[in-house]
Amino acid sequence: MRVLAVGAHPDDLEILCGGTLARFVQEGHDVVMCHATRGNRGSFVHTSEEIAAIRGGEALRAAELCGAEYACLGFSDAEINAADRDQQRAVIDLVRDARPDLIITHSPGDYMGDHNEISRLVFDCSFYAALPLYETGKPYHSEITPIYFMETIMGHGFQPSEFVDISSTMATKVAMLEAHESQLTWLKDHNDVDIVEQMQTVSRFRGQQCGVQYAEGFVPCLTHLRGTTRRLLP
Amino acid sequence: MRVLAVGAHPDDLEILCGGTLARFVQEGHDVVMCHATRGNRGSFVHTSEEIAAIRGGEALRAAELCGAEYACLGFSDAEINAADRDQQRAVIDLVRDARPDLIITHSPGDYMGDHNEISRLVFDCSFYAALPLYETGKPYHSEITPIYFMETIMGHGFQPSEFVDISSTMATKVAMLEAHESQLTWLKDHNDVDIVEQMQTVSRFRGQQCGVQYAEGFVPCLTHLRGTTRRLLP
Amino acid sequence: MRVLAVGAHPDDLEILCGGTLARFVQEGHDVVMCHATRGNRGSFVHTSEEIAAIRGGEALRAAELCGAEYACLGFSDAEINAADRDQQRAVIDLVRDARPDLIITHSPGDYMGDHNEISRLVFDCSFYAALPLYETGKPYHSEITPIYFMETIMGHGFQPSEFVDISSTMATKVAMLEAHESQLTWLKDHNDVDIVEQMQTVSRFRGQQCGVQYAEGFVPCLTHLRGTTRRLLP
Amino acid sequence: MRVLAVGAHPDDLEILCGGTLARFVQEGHDVVMCHATRGNRGSFVHTSEEIAAIRGGEALRAAELCGAEYACLGFSDAEINAADRDQQRAVIDLVRDARPDLIITHSPGDYMGDHNEISRLVFDCSFYAALPLYETGKPYHSEITPIYFMETIMGHGFQPSEFVDISSTMATKVAMLEAHESQLTWLKDHNDVDIVEQMQTVSRFRGQQCGVQYAEGFVPCLTHLRGTTRRLLP
Amino acid sequence: MRVLAVGAHPDDLEILCGGTLARFVQEGHDVVMCHATRGNRGSFVHTSEEIAAIRGGEALRAAELCGAEYACLGFSDAEINAADRDQQRAVIDLVRDARPDLIITHSPGDYMGDHNEISRLVFDCSFYAALPLYETGKPYHSEITPIYFMETIMGHGFQPSEFVDISSTMATKVAMLEAHESQLTWLKDHNDVDIVEQMQTVSRFRGQQCGVQYAEGFVPCLTHLRGTTRRLLP
Amino acid sequence: MRVLAVGAHPDDLEILCGGTLARFVQEGHDVVMCHATRGNRGSFVHTSEEIAAIRGGEALRAAELCGAEYACLGFSDAEINAADRDQQRAVIDLVRDARPDLIITHSPGDYMGDHNEISRLVFDCSFYAALPLYETGKPYHSEITPIYFMETIMGHGFQPSEFVDISSTMATKVAMLEAHESQLTWLKDHNDVDIVEQMQTVSRFRGQQCGVQYAEGFVPCLTHLRGTTRRLLP
Repeated sequence: MRVLAVGAHPDDLEILCGGTLARFVQEGHDVVMCHATRGNRGSFVHTSEEIAAIRGGEALRAAELCGAEYACLGFSDAEINAADRDQQRAVIDLVRDARPDLIITHSPGDYMGDHNEISRLVFDCSFYAALPLYETGKPYHSEITPIYFMETIMGHGFQPSEFVDISSTMATKVAMLEAHESQLTWLKDHNDVDIVEQMQTVSRFRGQQCGVQYAEGFVPCLTHLRGTTRRLLP
Repeated sequence: MRVLAVGAHPDDLEILCGGTLARFVQEGHDVVMCHATRGNRGSFVHTSEEIAAIRGGEALRAAELCGAEYACLGFSDAEINAADRDQQRAVIDLVRDARPDLIITHSPGDYMGDHNEISRLVFDCSFYAALPLYETGKPYHSEITPIYFMETIMGHGFQPSEFVDISSTMATKVAMLEAHESQLTWLKDHNDVDIVEQMQTVSRFRGQQCGVQYAEGFVPCLTHLRGTTRRLLP
Repeated sequence: MRVLAVGAHPDDLEILCGGTLARFVQEGHDVVMCHATRGNRGSFVHTSEEIAAIRGGEALRAAELCGAEYACLGFSDAEINAADRDQQRAVIDLVRDARPDLIITHSPGDYMGDHNEISRLVFDCSFYAALPLYETGKPYHSEITPIYFMETIMGHGFQPSEFVDISSTMATKVAMLEAHESQLTWLKDHNDVDIVEQMQTVSRFRGQQCGVQYAEGFVPCLTHLRGTTRRLLP
Repeated sequence: MRVLAVGAHPDDLEILCGGTLARFVQEGHDVVMCHATRGNRGSFVHTSEEIAAIRGGEALRAAELCGAEYACLGFSDAEINAADRDQQRAVIDLVRDARPDLIITHSPGDYMGDHNEISRLVFDCSFYAALPLYETGKPYHSEITPIYFMETIMGHGFQPSEFVDISSTMATKVAMLEAHESQLTWLKDHNDVDIVEQMQTVSRFRGQQCGVQYAEGFVPCLTHLRGTTRRLLP
Repeated sequence: MRVLAVGAHPDDLEILCGGTLARFVQEGHDVVMCHATRGNRGSFVHTSEEIAAIRGGEALRAAELCGAEYACLGFSDAEINAADRDQQRAVIDLVRDARPDLIITHSPGDYMGDHNEISRLVFDCSFYAALPLYETGKPYHSEITPIYFMETIMGHGFQPSEFVDISSTMATKVAMLEAHESQLTWLKDHNDVDIVEQMQTVSRFRGQQCGVQYAEGFVPCLTHLRGTTRRLLP
Repeated sequence: MRVLAVGAHPDDLEILCGGTLARFVQEGHDVVMCHATRGNRGSFVHTSEEIAAIRGGEALRAAELCGAEYACLGFSDAEINAADRDQQRAVIDLVRDARPDLIITHSPGDYMGDHNEISRLVFDCSFYAALPLYETGKPYHSEITPIYFMETIMGHGFQPSEFVDISSTMATKVAMLEAHESQLTWLKDHNDVDIVEQMQTVSRFRGQQCGVQYAEGFVPCLTHLRGTTRRLLP
């Protein structure tokens, strides 16, 4: 199976579905980890270009730790915009390149604009990618891929309907998130948040909800042509 | 795996999850089909005792067609009552006898009292069945069993989150429902409803929602101690 | 058309659907106004029997002002209980006597137990009333009657999906409510609430929501066998 | 009454509300059937211009079968965009030309971007069309028109609150949909879907939910200035 | 202010609102901690009477650690029943004795019957307690008390709308829960659950949701006569 | 505390939260009242420039009556667009200028596009305003500010979870709304709506829901980094 995971910023996938992606890899599936922006506004101390370069390196290391392929759409932080034709084409091409059997992305009602916009872009464009006459220079993808929405940050307004046991990949998930050194510092300084501890709490909380050590929660996108009768998650 | 399915009346399971139960049997699992009432008020032409006897026979034949074990709680139609201590003990003993790994029952917001009451009885009593000091003469069941709610009649207010492909067992499901000859007649006469055609429409509708020929839809009961990280449905 | 309206206490129907009932009468339909309890605990100054007698008289006058038939189930305040077999039989017989084409009752999530219990009794028993073998000495009612839920008290948690213009019957509605003199006093004293003004505010609020002077809001009970393709409300 | 129905692509209205539109015409109302895009990306075998020409002809035939007036906004498939000022003006002018008493369009949470965007355009622009100072060269429409949302494709996440009996117009509805020959082929080839059979299943399912042979389901858009106390649907 | 907290079993309040109760006490309010059952079925090794005696002692110690008054309704585990007249009278008298300005109890949709039944009993009876003519030998309580629902066990289906910072009372909360030694053992043995660690995870999770170290989440019961314009929680 | 209230048009804040803003001022807080558009399309008799000038004056008087600072984003009616980069920068700068501790704005599901777009702009941009590298020439705001959503117009689809008692500021609220003379006339003529009476009805209705004379209702925006453990509303 080919899995495409799309987060807004470097580190979002690590926080919200890193353990699941590692399990996909463990079980022999191909995983592409894509962040939409370059992370170019996530710093108090660096210039935009500096921080983008740093975060690109961190995200690459995180993907390597997971065993996933790395991709970045190159958008700017705070500028993801589902109404933007160029961004739409970029996401269509991402899907056409990855040719996924399963897509994971943000929930539609998350805590900031970029998350909500990339969720909508992935929803819209994974459909448009299947239209031969939407020409982008790349061959169309021949199916409307099932989508799973990952948790909102800190779970506000989110109730998982499917859980993935990540006990066996929790150490990898922690390592993946710790690869984002610059972000750990910024969020510590800016919001007094230790995102590793926060991620561990949520993973433990979800684990307790389904009777395992650590878990991640998801809800399927239940719309026409995306339904399924099999469990696609690990 | 041991599967316990509990419907309010003879024919409810056949309508709402017959194809899924047949698939469980096909795949080697043990299935108990239990209806709560004797169906003793479902007639315009027979006495209560006559119709109960007729319907007991029909339900037994349906269970045999499915390859399931047959059970009946012996309650009266229109008298299922989750606040009744004797009925609670009967359901506790049903669970303690069946020792299920999975329970299927009605959704809490269905179209008539008996459906809603048995749903609550199964929810409550599958928990109480695990308490050693709730003494009924039968040994306690050692786990809080996951529950899947089947569809409401005609799907009002219900959105499945999991689908089971019943294309391979649709013929069995039809045969099971047709075993309820008395009920086909009564609903035809009383409500001008052809429940076989109705069931086929719903099964086809659910099939179209998830991309197969025929399907049945369910929602898991997501509460503490009933969560899981695996797909339990076929 | 025959309309059966069932409220928990004397004055509930007047507050929540009096204008609609008056319109039904205006348009030539038969209306039965039934309150479940005798109102026998709604006083700070009278004995239980005294207040029940007073309120029975008030309710009768209110029904007369509306042009409706008057009925009372004779239950005690604070003792409506959907799990009680005798109360079930009483509501079955109410339905079998009224033979309604349309039922109006409380919403399931209202502000006190009696309201919620009578709502469930009406839902359950209007189904059971159609079963010939549920014998109560009265002939079964030959259809499962559509139900409309009226507003919760002060609209908490309630969003109407259908509105009835009661501008032409607002004066009657006020008179009907004012017939409940004892209750106006008690709620004024006990809760510092002027229920006439309160009712006028809600009626005006609902009117503004649908573009008329005064309105009442309802939601249909959308379950199997109760659906319709026509507007049943005035 | 003047009815304006707006679907995303040629064939959407036929699938989701064709029977209701035919009933409006039957009862003497004026109906405009408008599809937002030219259907110019709905093919595997034709060029964009070829397929747009073919589908325009099919949609015109379908409208004629219904007795409705035909309109097309001329947008491109996969490019409907509620944030686009030119598209907004086009929809404002559509409303100003049609001067509807009732609008029917897609639900906001449907299965693909174009459906969701046209839903939002119709919601926004049917309001803006009433502002005299929003100048487009056409006279403003003097009311905020009530909107009914039609079903999502295959009913995911949708619960109708009003039903229309289309038993008498089902044959017309089938003929209207069959007029979209190119689309029948494409969806058969691309997604292995027989949209006529699919439409029949849904229409039958909705019919069973409300006690008729065939039905279509809708939910009113309940917002300020769009409320009503009458049934506007047939 | 007088606060009445009512849980189903000994230890429920400690898990779900112990930190909040300790804060109420800290700030000078009077708190009554009441568990509905004697905990008489919560053991694998003791007889019913033995475990009830043990758990009564544990609950008393927990209340003392909190500085709260201790109460027990004396019901049996697995037998809380909102339809039971005797249980209703017991809860009415509890309210009439405590005369609370604020009530905290279980959410209506929790994971087992006892929790849901006591929630309904408290909702119903805190209203009935205000009726002078509902005679129980104790004077009626003169107000309809606001209710806050505490979290479901492990937060399934629950979204807090108000948070209480319990960082300063977390140590007390842990000690209160650890006072329930017998229960720690039983749940460890029976369900392999460490309820102290589980409680800490949830408290930390809720804390992260609102920006403090540890928190508890609640939702107000928003019905007529229970609304307020002030924050009642600490 | 610094409070920033952002409405779509002149008069929206007056209708939906004027009493609360006046209370904030009364209690010594700083309030900025900002309307997004110039109100330049809200007339049947004036040119766009004329009406914009008139309404600017009216809004300024209303803010003065409240004791609030006045601001306007200068957008055009019917053109608020959350996907517009320039509008995003304008809202970011509004937040960076106001440096609020609390933001009040429209609910996401209100009755017209401008309301929904400004709600989304405020949600998105109050986050982006905190990013140092999103450079607009103004210093970044150092926190993600809590947001409260005010009621939809006429309360459709809205259930308040927090109420503010505005009995003491109701006279000011009426005066503030009456300052919008041009709008009173236009809505009277255009929609036959007396918005002062309408506002009074809603304020009284909300007051009755929470036991005071007049009230306004709100729901907090519960997302990551915006949670709180204190009541921020008066």
